[in-house]
Amino acid sequence: MSKIPYRFYLDEKDMPETWYNVRADMKVKCAPLINPATMKPVEKKDLTSVFCDELVDQELDETNRYIEIPEQVREFYKIYRPSPLIRAYNLERALGTPAKIYYKFEGNNTSGSHKLNSAAAQAYYAKKEGMTSLTTETGAGQWGTALAMACAYFGIDLTVYMVKSSFEQKPYRKAVMNTFGADIIPSPSDTTEVGRAILKNHPGTSGSLGCAISEAVEKAVSTKNCRYVLGSVLNQVLLHQSVIGLESKMAMEKLDEYPDIVIGCAGGGSNLGGLMSAFMQDRLLGKTHPYFIAVEPASCPSLTRGKFAYDFCDTGHITPLAKMYTLGSDFIPSPNHAGGLRYHGMSPVLSQLYHDGYIDKAVAVKQTDVFKAATFFAKYETILPAPESSHAIYAAIEEAKKCKESGEAKTILFGLTGTGYFDMAAYISYQEGTMNDYIPTDEDLQRSFDMLPKVDA
Amino acid sequence: MSKIPYRFYLDEKDMPETWYNVRADMKVKCAPLINPATMKPVEKKDLTSVFCDELVDQELDETNRYIEIPEQVREFYKIYRPSPLIRAYNLERALGTPAKIYYKFEGNNTSGSHKLNSAAAQAYYAKKEGMTSLTTETGAGQWGTALAMACAYFGIDLTVYMVKSSFEQKPYRKAVMNTFGADIIPSPSDTTEVGRAILKNHPGTSGSLGCAISEAVEKAVSTKNCRYVLGSVLNQVLLHQSVIGLESKMAMEKLDEYPDIVIGCAGGGSNLGGLMSAFMQDRLLGKTHPYFIAVEPASCPSLTRGKFAYDFCDTGHITPLAKMYTLGSDFIPSPNHAGGLRYHGMSPVLSQLYHDGYIDKAVAVKQTDVFKAATFFAKYETILPAPESSHAIYAAIEEAKKCKESGEAKTILFGLTGTGYFDMAAYISYQEGTMNDYIPTDEDLQRSFDMLPKVDA
Repeated sequence: MSKIPYRFYLDEKDMPETWYNVRADMKVKCAPLINPATMKPVEKKDLTSVFCDELVDQELDETNRYIEIPEQVREFYKIYRPSPLIRAYNLERALGTPAKIYYKFEGNNTSGSHKLNSAAAQAYYAKKEGMTSLTTETGAGQWGTALAMACAYFGIDLTVYMVKSSFEQKPYRKAVMNTFGADIIPSPSDTTEVGRAILKNHPGTSGSLGCAISEAVEKAVSTKNCRYVLGSVLNQVLLHQSVIGLESKMAMEKLDEYPDIVIGCAGGGSNLGGLMSAFMQDRLLGKTHPYFIAVEPASCPSLTRGKFAYDFCDTGHITPLAKMYTLGSDFIPSPNHAGGLRYHGMSPVLSQLYHDGYIDKAVAVKQTDVFKAATFFAKYETILPAPESSHAIYAAIEEAKKCKESGEAKTILFGLTGTGYFDMAAYISYQEGTMNDYIPTDEDLQRSFDMLPKVDA
Repeated sequence: MSKIPYRFYLDEKDMPETWYNVRADMKVKCAPLINPATMKPVEKKDLTSVFCDELVDQELDETNRYIEIPEQVREFYKIYRPSPLIRAYNLERALGTPAKIYYKFEGNNTSGSHKLNSAAAQAYYAKKEGMTSLTTETGAGQWGTALAMACAYFGIDLTVYMVKSSFEQKPYRKAVMNTFGADIIPSPSDTTEVGRAILKNHPGTSGSLGCAISEAVEKAVSTKNCRYVLGSVLNQVLLHQSVIGLESKMAMEKLDEYPDIVIGCAGGGSNLGGLMSAFMQDRLLGKTHPYFIAVEPASCPSLTRGKFAYDFCDTGHITPLAKMYTLGSDFIPSPNHAGGLRYHGMSPVLSQLYHDGYIDKAVAVKQTDVFKAATFFAKYETILPAPESSHAIYAAIEEAKKCKESGEAKTILFGLTGTGYFDMAAYISYQEGTMNDYIPTDEDLQRSFDMLPKVDA
């Protein structure tokens, strides 16, 4: 076999024609979503005022293993996919490790992240079902940018509730979304009832994803031909993101490789869920499989320090309840925390898999350690990584160092979810030594846990 | 033949092994560089205190058609090359044109532009020749970022003189260069004699590339084991950038295509020179060839309104004289002008080819028209283009519209040199309607022409 190239691209014709629905292969299914009004499992009709019909079907589908990617979505994917699988030769050399390090790079599109994979799908279904506008929330801005691009392409209006701390730190993110025609509102705002209530109870708050979700949902249900879309956490999003893992697995097969370790950063879970999906299938079906590692910020440690419990998905408590690892829907991470990964909960699918031992390890990393890894990586691999992605870089470097000690030539695959072009304020604070390593205290978390809803399920 | 993919990547093994030196095929060679001290053509020894030896050889080489790309540079190229050749299906549909539009996208690397192609080569030769540091200038910041990346990779220090207007508008560009370990100094500065003189004579100046070049050269010649490197204009830079055109031509051949029109933005000429090189060879050798269009900003119109004359390459008049299209080395474009393409002169190679009719057309475009084209392009192609690149987009759209009128299905190839992530302040001024369309008056230019040096050559 010839030497493996630095960047390996699948042919366009090899792009997956179906998404993979990992729930179909899970022995223990996720606990159902609960309707907070009835405290009973949600049915399709409970969700269709908020989400597009086909997306509700996908959300509730636990049986269909493969779901067709619509042709129009595939056409959109072709603009930036298949994404490259990169062999980190230079990083390996710099570390002096016998490990073989690969990363699936999802930053090669203007949104700068993997979020575009689900944005394209959700905008397409909305257009197909006759919607004229969408609402969403965005934290770091990657999801909002991705959805703005997809909405511009499919011809549909978009209002984005952007977490206020991010809105203020990232005026250029707003400008990119404006370039693609989206309206951006800092959250909490006075454009919704829930926003006004939060502003009243928490004056001066820097906002949170949970709060922005509440506003976007309220706006969607109160606007004609409008639906709400979400960029992470949901089952449908993990489904769309499965394209990452499917491509990764196929590319590695063509290179005669298979990962010993799969590493992904985890905020709401969309990236890790997507990256690991095709490999997790191997595990669920009893085949040889990798060791799975989830990496989260120490400032928002839902897997490592959260409760596996029913909780609201938003701060305003207008969404269904999901059983997931959660820090409590009142938990608002430090505004100092750079980048995304600020959500209080974790995808129910990932949560269940972690709870049942299918995800082997979760680690929480301080942000100065994350930026140290990011800067090291940039120097050798020449890609400026997003802070979110750099959590996975940190863990991959740690695993590669262990290989150096043990002499094992393990094959490591991690997800490089995006680029850091809009995170330079955070890089500057790291370079200037002013970056905080905020970690919530046990008391902080207990206060938030005490507010968890009581559910008999 | 199967349908042409959206993104076509050559295999890594197809990457060119040599650069193409277009001067070898030019019937009329460029006029020689003149040493301002002796007013005689420069010899190698006049340049080796400023530039690395092998780069001086390349600068003066008019006979070797192909020059080997060193293996270490090819290894670096493999990190981000071959770059994709993209079929603009969505733009074609949006315009309703029968034209087939292709673009060679050089923005898929962290520097965000094609500049990395020459940065890698220049940093490599400096390291090879035992240099411990380099100096350079940067305008919009793309070149400085590219060189910072290359210097980090090859392990060599870098000082960047950044045009003051850009330094102030783009703090995040500075932060990216800092991430790769470079020192950044706003120019004009008090760190050099020439900088102090310019500050004295033009207090409050926003700087210019010509001025930053003077400072970087002075710093290089006054520092041990230090050389100066330049990101455009020079023959050696066009040589390195020939990789763009070589890859483009090879990719189009594999797709059974050949361009009727080749379009590139032109500031110092590195992009257009590189993109057109392999196709220009066809023309110089009397074969079928494309129609060549150079696109420049109306605010800095060296080809369309400049003089073809000997001029200094810098404001401080410490560099050799080159015969080129120039607005005069005292010309300082409006600080309002967004992005790069602010250099007073044009590559001597491009200038000679344009003078002799081998480049068919040069057009100058107002920046609001450029941003209108950029925004339209982003919506359909989902790539946020750099303002520089958007000059070529504008011209490509104009040509595609002509095809719609005439019904001709011409094949258009343009260079998408980079991404606009660090140009959001300019996008905002366009969106808010505050962008100026500054165009120099004839009197402005005449004042600058009156200062051109008198050379009997």
